[in-house]
Amino acid sequence: MSAQLVDLNCDMGESFGAFRIGEDDDILPSVTSVSVACGFHGGDPRVIDRTVKEASRRGVAIGAHPGFPDLVGFGRRDMRLSPDEARTDVLYQIGAVSAFTRAAGVPLQHVKPHGQLNNLAVMDRTLAEAIVAAVRAFDDNLILVAYGGELVHAAQDAGLTIGYEVFADRAYNADGTLVSRRQSGAIIQDVEQVVGRAVSMVQEHRVRAITGENVEVRADTICVHGDTPGAASIAAALRAGLTAVGIAVRPLRDVVQQRDRNVA
Amino acid sequence: MSAQLVDLNCDMGESFGAFRIGEDDDILPSVTSVSVACGFHGGDPRVIDRTVKEASRRGVAIGAHPGFPDLVGFGRRDMRLSPDEARTDVLYQIGAVSAFTRAAGVPLQHVKPHGQLNNLAVMDRTLAEAIVAAVRAFDDNLILVAYGGELVHAAQDAGLTIGYEVFADRAYNADGTLVSRRQSGAIIQDVEQVVGRAVSMVQEHRVRAITGENVEVRADTICVHGDTPGAASIAAALRAGLTAVGIAVRPLRDVVQQRDRNVA
Amino acid sequence: MSAQLVDLNCDMGESFGAFRIGEDDDILPSVTSVSVACGFHGGDPRVIDRTVKEASRRGVAIGAHPGFPDLVGFGRRDMRLSPDEARTDVLYQIGAVSAFTRAAGVPLQHVKPHGQLNNLAVMDRTLAEAIVAAVRAFDDNLILVAYGGELVHAAQDAGLTIGYEVFADRAYNADGTLVSRRQSGAIIQDVEQVVGRAVSMVQEHRVRAITGENVEVRADTICVHGDTPGAASIAAALRAGLTAVGIAVRPLRDVVQQRDRNVA
Amino acid sequence: MSAQLVDLNCDMGESFGAFRIGEDDDILPSVTSVSVACGFHGGDPRVIDRTVKEASRRGVAIGAHPGFPDLVGFGRRDMRLSPDEARTDVLYQIGAVSAFTRAAGVPLQHVKPHGQLNNLAVMDRTLAEAIVAAVRAFDDNLILVAYGGELVHAAQDAGLTIGYEVFADRAYNADGTLVSRRQSGAIIQDVEQVVGRAVSMVQEHRVRAITGENVEVRADTICVHGDTPGAASIAAALRAGLTAVGIAVRPLRDVVQQRDRNVA
Repeated sequence: MSAQLVDLNCDMGESFGAFRIGEDDDILPSVTSVSVACGFHGGDPRVIDRTVKEASRRGVAIGAHPGFPDLVGFGRRDMRLSPDEARTDVLYQIGAVSAFTRAAGVPLQHVKPHGQLNNLAVMDRTLAEAIVAAVRAFDDNLILVAYGGELVHAAQDAGLTIGYEVFADRAYNADGTLVSRRQSGAIIQDVEQVVGRAVSMVQEHRVRAITGENVEVRADTICVHGDTPGAASIAAALRAGLTAVGIAVRPLRDVVQQRDRNVA
Repeated sequence: MSAQLVDLNCDMGESFGAFRIGEDDDILPSVTSVSVACGFHGGDPRVIDRTVKEASRRGVAIGAHPGFPDLVGFGRRDMRLSPDEARTDVLYQIGAVSAFTRAAGVPLQHVKPHGQLNNLAVMDRTLAEAIVAAVRAFDDNLILVAYGGELVHAAQDAGLTIGYEVFADRAYNADGTLVSRRQSGAIIQDVEQVVGRAVSMVQEHRVRAITGENVEVRADTICVHGDTPGAASIAAALRAGLTAVGIAVRPLRDVVQQRDRNVA
Repeated sequence: MSAQLVDLNCDMGESFGAFRIGEDDDILPSVTSVSVACGFHGGDPRVIDRTVKEASRRGVAIGAHPGFPDLVGFGRRDMRLSPDEARTDVLYQIGAVSAFTRAAGVPLQHVKPHGQLNNLAVMDRTLAEAIVAAVRAFDDNLILVAYGGELVHAAQDAGLTIGYEVFADRAYNADGTLVSRRQSGAIIQDVEQVVGRAVSMVQEHRVRAITGENVEVRADTICVHGDTPGAASIAAALRAGLTAVGIAVRPLRDVVQQRDRNVA
Repeated sequence: MSAQLVDLNCDMGESFGAFRIGEDDDILPSVTSVSVACGFHGGDPRVIDRTVKEASRRGVAIGAHPGFPDLVGFGRRDMRLSPDEARTDVLYQIGAVSAFTRAAGVPLQHVKPHGQLNNLAVMDRTLAEAIVAAVRAFDDNLILVAYGGELVHAAQDAGLTIGYEVFADRAYNADGTLVSRRQSGAIIQDVEQVVGRAVSMVQEHRVRAITGENVEVRADTICVHGDTPGAASIAAALRAGLTAVGIAVRPLRDVVQQRDRNVA
């Protein structure tokens, strides 16, 4: 029987011109996949170029991280886009990042929507379908990273491969949604506890909700938030902790392929 | 012996959101290649999507038309970009447009730099090399549309296929450069004369300079300026006039392939 | 007894760089106030400069027309801004336009929110208060142009002068709201009918709803939509028709002052 | 006889949305004037608001810091703007920042062009005149901060008050221009030496050039570069060092008024 696998992913390349954000260089050694900002909520062509080159040099898999066209709001504000606007904005951004993976001679592994584009797509089937349509139009072999709701349903119905994402440093509600950041206890800062939750999510497919219940989760990839203070040490601790209990940390493509082989 | 071929190209998809520019729908039936704005000097994801779909539906070949990151200046103002900035800006824009050709199931045929990015690259070898590097990094089978100077030299030295562009509605200097738009007589408005010059450029590989001399030109593709008043009728007249004298109007890829077969 | 007064207002200066929108030059002779786009949803510093100069030359009063920071969406898409974001975005835009009225030696008369910033503020008290706070922080003598709802309430509670706006070319619901553009009959295209409704709104303070009831309205200023086809002739017809029945068409400041004198 | 005065100025408010840049909070206590980015090369309405409020709370004088419309290049790349473009871009930016000083109940003290807008205006009379025209059109009582060349000449010819700026941490050429950052020795990092040069510039109106000659300078305001590592401690050292030798550190308006009284 083969080892259990999981991917560690982090958003990267969100700096813009002279404006630096995130600790990309310190986090990169610990993760196996990165989602690269595409220039709409963050990122610019130089940042994408450097991020893709550095990730590919280290064997870290690369995805596109499209967001709302809202640089000053960092893609974290609700915008109501028509399905056509959402689809074309996502398609444009995938294409832009893919030019750099192509130039670097590495494949584009996945797409992970950013910020409110992601959060709204969990609740809005129409938006979810627009994102899924963009991904499939570009390459129906891409993996869509999603953590639940309508985005998962729309991807399933369209036959798109999903990489299920979990958040080891975030508290869960009993229904599997995340506890709002505005609520106390939403962010788990104790690194040992974060690692423990990650292991439980991968090995037992569950996590304890903030209200005590066990919540079932599918954990193909664990998200490391690049803008959390101390993100680099959390990432390193996660990688070491998972490895220590025999879980192999691998790029999402490998995780998903093993998962689907086991099912078949 | 096969018929002489030439391509008719026009810049398209330069509208932005609610802001309309150009007479794309009226010009499209007459041309064989379009260069699609990529969102930096003009164009947005919806406009790119519609332009690519409409062109591909009509069998018109599609290229990317990257420009300076200067929407308010429409890419027509000098900007001094570093080679790294120019290369990555162009690569990003090619990728963005290529996502839509890929979604439409048609190839990306060429790249044609826009406005001052194009004009400065004719004089600036470093900038020209940065553009060429971006094109090759994306796909070294792409055709670079160029009308002369360092951009042609850089492409030749890099082994990139060039589509030589001529301007039937612009006066030429004796050295093969274009007469500045600020000079009287720079723009040729008489449609019959425009057609006559186009035929001469294709059949005799020359055009009469504003000072009377014959200037040798290579004419793989004739540019129709989409923002000239009456552009649609000029395009139609060019197509009819060229066809009438036995010149076949074909997408640039066909023209270049025949040209290179004849050489070989 | 003095003549009845009303203002005719139109949004202007929404072009951006090479991208032209609206028929500003043709409409300007017929209106008495213009609301100038501030660069966020449309407009750029050259367009603002020209619009302000041309309006002031003709004695047309000038206001700022702030919108959401969404150029590609022309400020017509819902965005959820925090109160702090809305207040500072509006304050910034008022300041930008006021630099040009100051340079032209004319006062800034009013502020009229654009597109969805306006529409959402009718329903959202918090957003309305943020807009009102920005206007008052800049100059509490400015007139806020509003057509109803929370924006009116917030302005009233803050003691800000309101210029009540009506739409002669739009159908009203019985509750005083506008019939959605998506519904048939929402836009009234017959010019005579538009003029008749305008006269009724000014003289009788009422308009017939799409369902037949009489709706009470306060009509300090009548909006001419600059992007309606034929906007210039509608504006001219309104001015002529109002004048013909003895209603004097005057800038909003005059209208509001007479209104408030009559009340006092 | 009154004490010698000098102003300490720093560029501030260059952060943009989630993108932080500079150590504004740490530098503010040491300086007497700040130049606030206006949203083109950096800065956004929230950042302007906070910066203006914090500066005014501390009695620090406020100026506008307009730059090229090039956020991704941070206004540090050459752009060729027409005089009309430069004038209107600067006027727009002054107006935007002035809305926040007006809301805070403090005057706008000065205008200091940013980055390449500043550097090119030193060499380009036409650009310099466009900047001067914008400042005067807004308020001919504003001080223009300039370090030399055509910008000084254009301001002098237009009768605009100039605040002469010096750079204590930069090496000078014998002709009074700055040694290029690309040349070794261009930046003086030893804090004691920086303070010594500042004192010499204020008291003796001269500084030693990199080639040994004495260069005459006029020092109304000393620039602290906010993006130099350790900027806050350099600013504190400058303030302490100047005060220790009896030079009073005061906002630029006071410095200029005393200077002009002495002349008169």
